[in-house]
Order: sequence, then structure tokens, then C-alpha cells
Amino acid sequence: MTQPRVLIIGAGLVGTSVGMALTRSGATVHFEDANPSHATVAAGLSKGRIGSLGPDEVDVVVVATPPASIVAVVREALQRFPAALVTDVGSVKAPITAAIAHPHYIGSHPMAGSQHTGPLTASASLFEGRAWIVSPGPDALPAHVELLHQLIGSTGAVAVTMEPHRHDEAVAQVSHLPHLMSILTASHLREVPPAHLELAGQGLRDVTRIARSDTTMWRQIITTNSAAIRHELGEVAADLAHLIGILDDPDALEQFLAVGRQGALSLRGKHGNEPLALRFVTVRIPDEPRALARLFGDVGELGLNVEDFTLAHDTVAEVGYLSIAVEHDSAEQLRDALLEHGWDAWIKEDQV
Amino acid sequence: MTQPRVLIIGAGLVGTSVGMALTRSGATVHFEDANPSHATVAAGLSKGRIGSLGPDEVDVVVVATPPASIVAVVREALQRFPAALVTDVGSVKAPITAAIAHPHYIGSHPMAGSQHTGPLTASASLFEGRAWIVSPGPDALPAHVELLHQLIGSTGAVAVTMEPHRHDEAVAQVSHLPHLMSILTASHLREVPPAHLELAGQGLRDVTRIARSDTTMWRQIITTNSAAIRHELGEVAADLAHLIGILDDPDALEQFLAVGRQGALSLRGKHGNEPLALRFVTVRIPDEPRALARLFGDVGELGLNVEDFTLAHDTVAEVGYLSIAVEHDSAEQLRDALLEHGWDAWIKEDQV
Repeated sequence: MTQPRVLIIGAGLVGTSVGMALTRSGATVHFEDANPSHATVAAGLSKGRIGSLGPDEVDVVVVATPPASIVAVVREALQRFPAALVTDVGSVKAPITAAIAHPHYIGSHPMAGSQHTGPLTASASLFEGRAWIVSPGPDALPAHVELLHQLIGSTGAVAVTMEPHRHDEAVAQVSHLPHLMSILTASHLREVPPAHLELAGQGLRDVTRIARSDTTMWRQIITTNSAAIRHELGEVAADLAHLIGILDDPDALEQFLAVGRQGALSLRGKHGNEPLALRFVTVRIPDEPRALARLFGDVGELGLNVEDFTLAHDTVAEVGYLSIAVEHDSAEQLRDALLEHGWDAWIKEDQV
Repeated sequence: MTQPRVLIIGAGLVGTSVGMALTRSGATVHFEDANPSHATVAAGLSKGRIGSLGPDEVDVVVVATPPASIVAVVREALQRFPAALVTDVGSVKAPITAAIAHPHYIGSHPMAGSQHTGPLTASASLFEGRAWIVSPGPDALPAHVELLHQLIGSTGAVAVTMEPHRHDEAVAQVSHLPHLMSILTASHLREVPPAHLELAGQGLRDVTRIARSDTTMWRQIITTNSAAIRHELGEVAADLAHLIGILDDPDALEQFLAVGRQGALSLRGKHGNEPLALRFVTVRIPDEPRALARLFGDVGELGLNVEDFTLAHDTVAEVGYLSIAVEHDSAEQLRDALLEHGWDAWIKEDQV
């Protein structure tokens, strides 16, 4: 198949990154932006082009403008390029798909971004291995769906088909709600004296990092998906009321903390393993203090979350054993690193 | 002053890190732990010792056990070592200080840790540049306060004196509340289908990272400081109700998002500058496309948050200028990096 000719409207972080990824794969990319400096920079970064295009010079239009303008820009693109497939990369799909309802339009949404904005922070590898949702409406043309999958694949992303309403519910859960939880935590800092803020550590910084994001863009995302978000926030409000009620009940509190821990860990396992399952790596150590110290250093270097360990000693053979419990997915990494450092190490396969 | 002889009771992440930092500075360190393997490992990692000690062989006892056992362990240490200063590193100070009320006890709290647990993830540099609160009660001996400051300084931390109740309010705000916001976000994932979870990006992972922490330790921290935490959670519940009410009001919503953004950014500036103030770095560029592309590459590499930029062109001198707006504290870094790459770059001092 020949490489498609792509017009990207909107040279922000995502639009420019799409262009960089596509030209790297051989596509021809044009940029347009309401701010000509941004289009120039995007073209410079991606070896793309700027300037006007005829109605038959474009195969695919990617609309990467701020959320509030997407419907208008898509409609205009459908008129300017009647033969082209038009897609957008906005964070909400159902309202846009319903408003446009055109057989040449297919909404999509790459699950990648950053708290940065503008083309200068764009990256050709922004989409590597990330999901890129495709949300075709009922009238979408099969050839267009295929073309969009091809385009997404050439950015390094993985195309995932999802019905528009289901997509909006999913992003309310995994993106919009966490964003607002970060905002709630960060906005609460207005009550905190500066001398107290100086005690803040990495935890607070992690929780509030995404609250730094562009407020204009998020205003548009949230108001467009407000029904799904209201539902999620209502559930969190109920959880919060429950939490306030159990602050002095250690057992109920720990149960709630454990549900949270399980939820956080469920984001980690990539290979379908139960993330809380532990595996033990056993290391044979000569019975001398310096060997033990060196082993601790080698293990510590790896920065793994060591869940537990025990030291055992074989008084007959004059050797010791250190059994180290780590998360399921870390065991092989630990064993291999120890073998590389010259230790005799193995995984106790049946003890989980 | 001679180096103090220190006994650390509790060889977890913090206790072991204290030992590693102290032996590096020349102190003599002993370890005790309910789990003998942990004490052995901590001693191995820090070149410290294990084994019993006489009543006059210790100058300072550092209690680094789980929060729920601190009062009992401190009381026992005060009896075993009647001449020693006894401190603890627990996250809550007022209830412990009131319960112990002994002139040889001074509570303290290093503002450092990690979601990991146990001695194997300890680090001698855990406290470098971090605040370490000292909360002397009314009967504390001045010589002990001085000794504790000396000890803290030798770990690389900065001693900050704070009254116990004020400390507990501060950590409720900057540590315990953010922890529970992370837990609320992570526990909500129990409602989310696995196919939706697969769409989660870095934002959700950042917000929920600290929710992975040890639930037993946090159960003890939260129940001990529940009054201060209840107050903060009540304020957040009010904010959440407000947020649910304005989801469809774009202006009110953006105002709320901006308060959050300001709060998140307030954690960043380390030098007292208004973190939102921008400075412009101007770069002179020869009028040729490849120079521009190379410049964009050099700027992009730095990973700074570029807030805005403009391209200007001097048609007489045949050169262009790129003015890049970055946060106040990043301007010098950007200019220096560009100078290093051979560009002619300067900060526009008066344009903020």
C-alpha cells in the first residue's frame, strides 16, 4: 500500500508528535495551525510541510486542535477534502461522533500525552506501545477503518476498537477522574501554610503532577464528558464519606487501604499474573560476613520492592541461604542479576 | 565532639537508612529488630553491629519500629538506657510526646521514605537535603536537643524544630491527606473493567503510586492522627461537592482547575520565585531550515515545559529569532544548554 498523504490540523504536543511519528514511517505530512509559528515548528521538527493544499491532495486529515473546536474543524475538513478520511484525537468521542454523523469521519484517541503543551515538547516515540482507540460510528466505511488502523500502526501505537460511549466511560474512569483527584489534592494546598508545604515529599508531588496540566484543555474535556465524570465522582464521594466514618476503626480502615493498594497494584502487572503473588529467590552464600554485605549491596542496587526475606544457615555444609520474596514479575530479573554477579541463585518455583 | 554511640531499634527502610547514613559519618551503630534477619541485614549494609549492650554503652536510641509499637519501645529504651537520649522517627508526634512525657525523650520525624519497606531498600542518602522535624516537649534537655540536631545533620538532613501538634497538622496536610487521595483514586479502580484499565496511562499511575504502600503501617499512622486528618478530609469533601456542582459550568470549572494548577506549581519553586512567572529566552538563528530543525531538536531534548514561543525574522540582517517562554527557574538552564550547543542565546530580563 502506498503511504498516505496526511494533513494534521493543530500543531500542539499530540499533533506534532503524530507528524513526527508518521514522517519517520515514510508518510507525507502537512501542518496547519491557527498560530503559524507552531505549524512552522511542527514542520521543522517532523520534516513535514506547510502551505495550502488542493481538495484531492490529502488522504487523511488528523484534527488535533483543542477539544472545544474539534467539531467545527472536522466539519470544515470534510468539506475541504471530500474524498479524505477525517479523524480527530480528542479525549471524548460520543458527543463529537453524534454531532458530526458523517461517513467519512471516524473518531480516535491516542492514550498518550503529557502535562506539557506545544510542539517543542513533541516526540516521535510518544505513541510507542500505547493504545490508540478507534471509535467508528455506524456509517464508517470499512476501507477507512483499515486505513486508520494502518496509520495508527505506523506511529508505533496499538489500535483498539471501542464504541464511542464505552470509550467515554473508560476515559472518565482511568483519565478524567484521576485528573480531578489530582486537582482536588492540589487545590487543597491553598489551605496549607508555606512552612508546612516545605515538608512536602515525593508522594504529594506525584499525586499532584497532572494537576499542572493546561486548564483550558481540561475545562473542555471535562465539560464535554461531564455525565460520565459525574457518575464516577459520585462514587468517590460515597467512598470519601465512608472513609471519614472509619478513621478511628483500624480494621475497617486497613481493609479500605488494602482495596486501594490492590487497585494500584492492578495497574502494574503486564503479563496477566496476579500482581500480589510473591516468588522467592534463594541465594547460596559462603559463611563469611563480607559475602553477606556484598550480596546485600548487589540486591539493594536493583531497587526492587523486596517484600520479605529470611536468612537460613546450614551448619553441616557451612553455607547460608538468603531467601528473598519479590513480586511475581521481578523474580527472574533478580535471579538473573544475581547470577550475573556470580552468585548461585534460583527461584523456588512452588512457594507462592 | 566525639561521635555518639547509637542504637537503632527497628531495622526497616528508615531505621537501616539512618544507620547507613550515620556510620558513613563516623558514628558507631548497633541494630535491634524483632526479626533477627532484618537486624543482621541492616548491620551488614551499614557496617553496624548487633548483639546486646550495657546500660551505659549507648548515647542515643533511635526507635524506628512500626507506629503502633513506638510508645512501648521508647518507654523500654528509657528504662534500659537511663542516661541516653531516646528519639523516634514516627510520622505522628503529639500523642506519643504526651504519652511518654519524659525529659530524656524527644520525638522527631525525617520527611523521607518510600513505598518500599524493609532494610534491603534502605539507602545512606535517603535523608540528603530533606527536612527532619524535631519536636521537643516542654521538659526536653537543651543538651539533648543539640545532640539530636548534630545527629540529624550528620545524616545529610536539615533539622527543623516544630511543636508536636503543629507537626501533626502539617503532615496531615502534606502527607496523610495526599496518601488518602491516592487510596481513594486507587480503590475506585475496583469498579473499572479490566479492558478499561488497560487504557490507563502515566497520570493514573502517578496518582496511585503511594497507594501501593504498606497498609499496616498506614493504618497505624492514620488512626494515630485521625483528628487532624478528619479535618482535612472534611474540607476536601466540601470541595468535591462543589466540583460535582460545577461540572457543566465551564468558567467555574476552569477557575477550580486553575486553583489546583497553582497549588501543584507551588510545590516546585525552590528559590522563592513566583512559580508561574515566565521568562523568555531568545535565540538567534541563521535563516536556513536546517538550523531551525536543529534548534528545535536541541530545545526538545531538554524536556522543559515550554509555555509559549514566537518566531520573528529580521529581513535586513537575514537572521531569525526564536523567543521561548519557560518558567522562571528554567530560563537559565535553557540559556546555558543552548550556549553549550553553540547557539547565540540570552534571557530577556524585563519581560515576565
